[in-house]
Amino acid sequence: MPRQRITLVTLGVADMDRAQRFYRGWGWVRHPASQPGVTFYQMSGAVLALFGLKDLAADQGRPVAALGFGAVTLAQNCADDRETDAVFQAALNAGATALKSPEKTFWGGYSGYFADPDGHVWEIATNPFWPLAADGSLTLPDV
Amino acid sequence: MPRQRITLVTLGVADMDRAQRFYRGWGWVRHPASQPGVTFYQMSGAVLALFGLKDLAADQGRPVAALGFGAVTLAQNCADDRETDAVFQAALNAGATALKSPEKTFWGGYSGYFADPDGHVWEIATNPFWPLAADGSLTLPDV
Repeated sequence: MPRQRITLVTLGVADMDRAQRFYRGWGWVRHPASQPGVTFYQMSGAVLALFGLKDLAADQGRPVAALGFGAVTLAQNCADDRETDAVFQAALNAGATALKSPEKTFWGGYSGYFADPDGHVWEIATNPFWPLAADGSLTLPDV
Repeated sequence: MPRQRITLVTLGVADMDRAQRFYRGWGWVRHPASQPGVTFYQMSGAVLALFGLKDLAADQGRPVAALGFGAVTLAQNCADDRETDAVFQAALNAGATALKSPEKTFWGGYSGYFADPDGHVWEIATNPFWPLAADGSLTLPDV
């Protein structure tokens, strides 16, 4: 699987209804995998997500005010927890700042967050419900 | 071409050498299409770009301090200038705030910027040197 990939771009939004109205109005179609509090849009091999600012901050273990650039989060999903750990550690070795070390999540996945030297936030994650293609791309499963 | 796509994710960086060192250290390989001041990484059908914060702000016609979330920019490339205009206008119609209306760029393309209701910045652009695949994905051309 290619190492260089962004699986999801997550936009932290202050008002989910307003954000959904905008993307719908712009012509985007919400994926049925969306749930209350998180909205998904299928792109070419990757996914755009809308997620509440407060929820995104909580997920990263930080106050909303600290999100800064992190109100956009870049996610790289991995094949398994071991790869997630290895990719996360490689980023720390390269100079990233850990925000939350990879740990089991309430939704059955495994996820950690770090900030790159400019404060851009990456999530490295395993999501057993969303298998990746061999080229590392993500197509949301049918629901 | 699918409407729902992000062609480039651009990270505004304060120190290009530092940013390049980090991504290289994390295992990413710089694409030879990179130039002084802008670094490209090929992903699965899309591109990650590093671009100086000041240059990114200037490109959007805003001071660096106003970038906010815009220090990440999401780009959707289009097949031609007419599609760029139409996609940009559709976003304005849906409630986006224009930052820079589409105009010819110094590098031979055509590009505009808007902010979504949360301030996330999108660039809508035509780049005649970077043809898109039928599925809307972008593979950097050989140089």
